[in-house]
Amino acid sequence: MKICALLSGGMDSTVMVAKLVAENHEVRTLGINYGQRHSKELGIAEAQAAMLGVPFTVVDFSNLGQLLPGNSLTSNIDVPEGHYAEDNMKATVVPNRNMILLAVAIGHAIAHECTAVAYAAHGGDHAVYPDCRPEFADAMAGVAAVCDYQKIEMLRPFMETDKAGIAKLGDSLGVNFARTWSCYKGGDHHCGRCGTCVERREAFYLAGVADPTIYGIDSPTVEDMVRNNWQLND
Amino acid sequence: MKICALLSGGMDSTVMVAKLVAENHEVRTLGINYGQRHSKELGIAEAQAAMLGVPFTVVDFSNLGQLLPGNSLTSNIDVPEGHYAEDNMKATVVPNRNMILLAVAIGHAIAHECTAVAYAAHGGDHAVYPDCRPEFADAMAGVAAVCDYQKIEMLRPFMETDKAGIAKLGDSLGVNFARTWSCYKGGDHHCGRCGTCVERREAFYLAGVADPTIYGIDSPTVEDMVRNNWQLND
Repeated sequence: MKICALLSGGMDSTVMVAKLVAENHEVRTLGINYGQRHSKELGIAEAQAAMLGVPFTVVDFSNLGQLLPGNSLTSNIDVPEGHYAEDNMKATVVPNRNMILLAVAIGHAIAHECTAVAYAAHGGDHAVYPDCRPEFADAMAGVAAVCDYQKIEMLRPFMETDKAGIAKLGDSLGVNFARTWSCYKGGDHHCGRCGTCVERREAFYLAGVADPTIYGIDSPTVEDMVRNNWQLND
Repeated sequence: MKICALLSGGMDSTVMVAKLVAENHEVRTLGINYGQRHSKELGIAEAQAAMLGVPFTVVDFSNLGQLLPGNSLTSNIDVPEGHYAEDNMKATVVPNRNMILLAVAIGHAIAHECTAVAYAAHGGDHAVYPDCRPEFADAMAGVAAVCDYQKIEMLRPFMETDKAGIAKLGDSLGVNFARTWSCYKGGDHHCGRCGTCVERREAFYLAGVADPTIYGIDSPTVEDMVRNNWQLND
């Protein structure tokens, strides 16, 4: 199958591309600069695509942040810390981000005669992101089926998997996790404190997979985090 | 109702915004630079928004053309001439353009607390554009209903209207048609020969509305076009 896959450089999409390649699909990957505060993850996505031997294209949509103000990923609001379940994590919602990314990926797929778009939404995605819900994914599959002369299939291979399952699968596929990027803050190292860092650490821990990530010096130890039920206490 | 309307500077979207304003909705407008060969229509959209007293934002997505190669609107392929019904007009299809534009408009609507997105797809839109079909519009309404915490309604006020009907309505609303832009070629004047120029001329003719457009000197007269059933014979 000829597939256009969204590749952010995070662990979920990297493992997904590794899985699709292992299944012998013809994969091309797409990274989108949507005005994230840092574009570090796009460089990492490019490196992962090279390691996996698939083409990688970046689309520059960097002024999207000005268009969609009021969230911490594309504007100057502070990135909240702590576990995703906390209410303040709503500040990380970029309005309609997933529909925009998927619409561009579908266009890229059509232009390159792919019959499917793959993305790494997973079963552990949180209700704080409305466009991570299964009903959104189903509706996108409906619109992808009628947006062109030929149907574009929407593949979301991790809908029944949580992030720990993704860590386990990536480990078995030999994914280089040290060269994936999750942190919202985009420093030299993962901060170890923002929602996506906490989730990353929890995933490796629950999967029983060694976490090769270097976290910032002011981040708690993983033992502290387990003891505190993945909440920050300072 | 608070509405985010897509405004391209063409006659359809301009008449739509005039209609929504006349109906006392609170309208904000969005123009998208998606790598069209010319950005003339965006300047015209801005002027129309000013005349109608509504805010206008442009989103720069100008490298989309490189991402979606192989069509004449965003790359170096010649713009085909003649009536839309002709097969070569397929070269003007920008893959998944409407889904991309609508996804951005929905994000903008969410960020600005609008409850609806309006766009000027109309009953006369041609089957050559798969993402102008009613089944595409219905599917988009489905995905817009679940992409955020609150439902975003998709308004397409012209689904039962053809372009002649739009010309007639715009005339009754006092729309300044001389300051709308349709031509794909983006010269000093409308070429009068490309698909969208032919459609524009036909609409004014069928509506019985005076066409204030200045067409290129090598374009046929409207009488010639009627005689030739809107086909070019040279």
